[in-house]
Amino acid sequence: MARTKSRKRKPAGASAELRFIPLGGFGEIGKNMLVFEYGEDILVVDSGLKFPDEEMFGIDFVIPDVSYLLENRDRIRGIVLTHGHEDHTGSLPFVLPRLDVPLYGTALTLGLAMGKLSEFAPSYEPELKEVRAGETVELGAFRVRFVSVCHSIPDGVGLIIETPEGIVVHTGDFKLDPTPIDGRLTDYNAFAEAGKKGVRLLLSDSTNAERPGYTPSENIVGKSFEQILRLHRNRRIVIAAFASNIHRTQQIFDAAARFNRKVALLGRSMVSNVELARRLGYIQVNEDLLVPAGEAERIPANRLVVLTTGSQGEPFSGLVLMSKGEHRHILLGPKDLVAIFATPIPGNEKLVSRTIDRLFALGCEVIYDREQHVHASGHASQEELKMMLSMVKPQFFVPVHGERRHQHRHAQLAVEMGLSEANVHILQNGDILRIHRGKAQIKGSVASGIVLVDGLALGEMKGSVLKERRELAEDGVLVLSVVLDEEGKLAGEIRLESRGFIHSTDAKELYEEIHKAVMKAIGSTGEKAAQDPEQLETRIKGRVREVIRRLTRGTPNVVPMVTILGKKEESA
Amino acid sequence: MARTKSRKRKPAGASAELRFIPLGGFGEIGKNMLVFEYGEDILVVDSGLKFPDEEMFGIDFVIPDVSYLLENRDRIRGIVLTHGHEDHTGSLPFVLPRLDVPLYGTALTLGLAMGKLSEFAPSYEPELKEVRAGETVELGAFRVRFVSVCHSIPDGVGLIIETPEGIVVHTGDFKLDPTPIDGRLTDYNAFAEAGKKGVRLLLSDSTNAERPGYTPSENIVGKSFEQILRLHRNRRIVIAAFASNIHRTQQIFDAAARFNRKVALLGRSMVSNVELARRLGYIQVNEDLLVPAGEAERIPANRLVVLTTGSQGEPFSGLVLMSKGEHRHILLGPKDLVAIFATPIPGNEKLVSRTIDRLFALGCEVIYDREQHVHASGHASQEELKMMLSMVKPQFFVPVHGERRHQHRHAQLAVEMGLSEANVHILQNGDILRIHRGKAQIKGSVASGIVLVDGLALGEMKGSVLKERRELAEDGVLVLSVVLDEEGKLAGEIRLESRGFIHSTDAKELYEEIHKAVMKAIGSTGEKAAQDPEQLETRIKGRVREVIRRLTRGTPNVVPMVTILGKKEESA
Repeated sequence: MARTKSRKRKPAGASAELRFIPLGGFGEIGKNMLVFEYGEDILVVDSGLKFPDEEMFGIDFVIPDVSYLLENRDRIRGIVLTHGHEDHTGSLPFVLPRLDVPLYGTALTLGLAMGKLSEFAPSYEPELKEVRAGETVELGAFRVRFVSVCHSIPDGVGLIIETPEGIVVHTGDFKLDPTPIDGRLTDYNAFAEAGKKGVRLLLSDSTNAERPGYTPSENIVGKSFEQILRLHRNRRIVIAAFASNIHRTQQIFDAAARFNRKVALLGRSMVSNVELARRLGYIQVNEDLLVPAGEAERIPANRLVVLTTGSQGEPFSGLVLMSKGEHRHILLGPKDLVAIFATPIPGNEKLVSRTIDRLFALGCEVIYDREQHVHASGHASQEELKMMLSMVKPQFFVPVHGERRHQHRHAQLAVEMGLSEANVHILQNGDILRIHRGKAQIKGSVASGIVLVDGLALGEMKGSVLKERRELAEDGVLVLSVVLDEEGKLAGEIRLESRGFIHSTDAKELYEEIHKAVMKAIGSTGEKAAQDPEQLETRIKGRVREVIRRLTRGTPNVVPMVTILGKKEESA
Repeated sequence: MARTKSRKRKPAGASAELRFIPLGGFGEIGKNMLVFEYGEDILVVDSGLKFPDEEMFGIDFVIPDVSYLLENRDRIRGIVLTHGHEDHTGSLPFVLPRLDVPLYGTALTLGLAMGKLSEFAPSYEPELKEVRAGETVELGAFRVRFVSVCHSIPDGVGLIIETPEGIVVHTGDFKLDPTPIDGRLTDYNAFAEAGKKGVRLLLSDSTNAERPGYTPSENIVGKSFEQILRLHRNRRIVIAAFASNIHRTQQIFDAAARFNRKVALLGRSMVSNVELARRLGYIQVNEDLLVPAGEAERIPANRLVVLTTGSQGEPFSGLVLMSKGEHRHILLGPKDLVAIFATPIPGNEKLVSRTIDRLFALGCEVIYDREQHVHASGHASQEELKMMLSMVKPQFFVPVHGERRHQHRHAQLAVEMGLSEANVHILQNGDILRIHRGKAQIKGSVASGIVLVDGLALGEMKGSVLKERRELAEDGVLVLSVVLDEEGKLAGEIRLESRGFIHSTDAKELYEEIHKAVMKAIGSTGEKAAQDPEQLETRIKGRVREVIRRLTRGTPNVVPMVTILGKKEESA
């Protein structure tokens, strides 16, 4: 059991309250981050990222605003990870070095987190605290018990947290798979036991709150794969799947071996996750099952399975490169069957659809239907969520991880299960839920919001930059350079450059008209131009925009640059 | 029966063949346009648009490239419309005035097409030929019979076309709704009769070829609406639906009247489509059922239904404005129930999802599930497609209207129904299917492709412009203006402007380094700069990019503009 130094601190006074503050994942899918506070102690759960909306031009991902945590760094006893998916760990490289607190998680979760940390923050050495499901860790006022839960990645945990204000249960991302691939069931017993003791607050995964019934077991995917192998004995088989779904990978390995096929792995994350999972013992595979991608073309079609990334149509992923005929090692054609063992994450539908279309164009047979059982979600559906509610029997309930629609549906389920509406709280990022002497209320908020990460350049992106990018994307840009002498007279050629600007009229006529407009602007400004080039720029902009709108109906961004001669360099 | 003058032309010789050429809608959803040719005669079916992919920055819609038709204008006997949806009529304002041929369609279809034509091509006067289902029109070598089909808009038709090479059946967009709202069934008899005579070629709607079973009848939506009215007697009810789905509108009017509620219409297309449909007799409604939007807030909540556009989360639509609290007339809150009577069209999922989330944030109850029967598709599912195949019993089959995945699935259904694979042809836009003496082959192609329409500016958009827009969107732009005298020496301040460029380092340091880089580039070019400013620009660009990459890791587009003094204006 790991212990922090915080036990030495004075216990929080009677006026202390338990505060629960989500910094991400509320009213949205992704960038999950939860904060618990009691007295002087802060416990952080998860540190995720999410992928940008399409209008966030040039942004690679979005992470939570952690300024509240930075201000209260000294009080943080640790970050606890529930599992290794990016929406729970992906912002660690940007957050952990700045907070510099211990990181708790199970072996695979920490292994995956370390992969990202060593890639994006290579110089930082985190303080890792490996835990196992069933263990308990004391973090200041919080006694955190790690509880095994099934999910679409191995080694996931929920948390049962003893606090001075009672027990808080956080399910983490979970499902109640009765036949998990690794035999590691969701620990019903632990949740039920907590329920028996009395749970003050339940936080439960809302991702699938709209889905009726039960989420199927992961093992249906293995059965579908066997069926495919059975029906297509003479074809080469290409499977696209999530690299982090180690159980799915295990099932593919097992079935390939049974059907006497080799497996070639494509895609950086597929290769590295299999390597990590093998090293840590999460995958069992005979060395001779795997063949290097470079040798795959030498294996007869009916002896090979290619396992690749790209199930979401990600640009530059293995499947997408193959679908474009651009993969170094594998050339697809009518001999191949491609099965996408995943459904599109909302927002990825078009990318996936285009990939499927390109595969058809190559002559491949493609299997991608939901009906074919090529995917099983990692999140509990309505009946499972109700079961969790009935096991834990909480006083207060907060639906976590979901857009408002999921939160509302989950809240409705809780009410259907007998909770009073007054005890179900729908929070948004930054809201503070305060629990004190058996009463709960949402009151106040802390800084929350989003930080946009553009490429390797970290740093908060201003809204104005995004607005400019959107304008550039919609209409392009037209740049004008005008040089005047000290008397405000034109002293050189007027230069004109455009990017991304469409016009349907004759370019020569347009440029002549723009030139005239600039000359008029200079004329109307007169000698003052040399004193006040900014005023001239405003006039040029106005007149040029007018001309363009009249002749082309276009509205590019017009950027005039007026240089006054004799005004020598001072600024640099 | 309408007759064209083409009958006077000499009949095509024995060497003539029937050619079928899709110009849009093959390998894609949208911009449907089919071409039939025999001898000297061309028949065009539909002239649609599609909405752009998100990476088509600034593009409003996409229309087919009709250069083949422009080259063969004299041979075109007419454009025949199957129904009034935009993916079948939306490019008419851009295509019809240039072809200037007669336009055939049913009353509602022509009415909707005229709405678009008078908006986008107000000075053009089309030659309209109104037809009714059951009628036959001779268009050169083609005898075209209009056959009633059910779809998500009234007055849709399929086509049974007699040609010298046999009968061609085109289903149009259809479903086999056994209980259509207007009682106008798909004309099974006509299709079966053609099948009995012998059909050379069947073209059938592939949109729902992936969907098993039968598409439910439109009347389930009316029943769901009644159920909502029954369960929520005290709430104001807001319904978002497609403006063109006149049958759904009729059902909402009928049920609202039965439950003693008024209806307020929001959204320009909702208002104009109801007006058109009433004028043409497609909607029956008592005048006193409708209240103007401006008076809606005065009607008690339990006496009002608001029927609005925005079911796809379209920006500036009624529902989206209401969800943002920006609608002039209607302010939504916890008293309101909003039901979205449509499912998101692929690609619109996020827009719809965000709208729903905003409605929840306002406190509305929101109904949007597929399970709640809020939508019935207008396209036939697999069992219906098989039924059509078995009625028509064609020699050759071409799946139309769909991405490759839909085409392949539909082709597979045809093979399952007994057609030989050799007789099923999957075409792409521009492909020519030639039928001659009972043999069919795909051979050759005509110009096809896309024309991008940006705002009101028509005209083909070059790929390079889109590429530039993408680069601007991703990385922004940095513009530099440098003025040199005739000896290649700096003659004014170096000016610098950026748009949409993010950098995390200190701007002052960055600008100083850029300045140094420019000075170095000028120094290394020396006196030659004045003779060859282009070379200097290339050098500046290279050095500045290097500095920016080093200091910020950003990669904006760098646009250097060098002006040489004394080089006077000649170009203008």
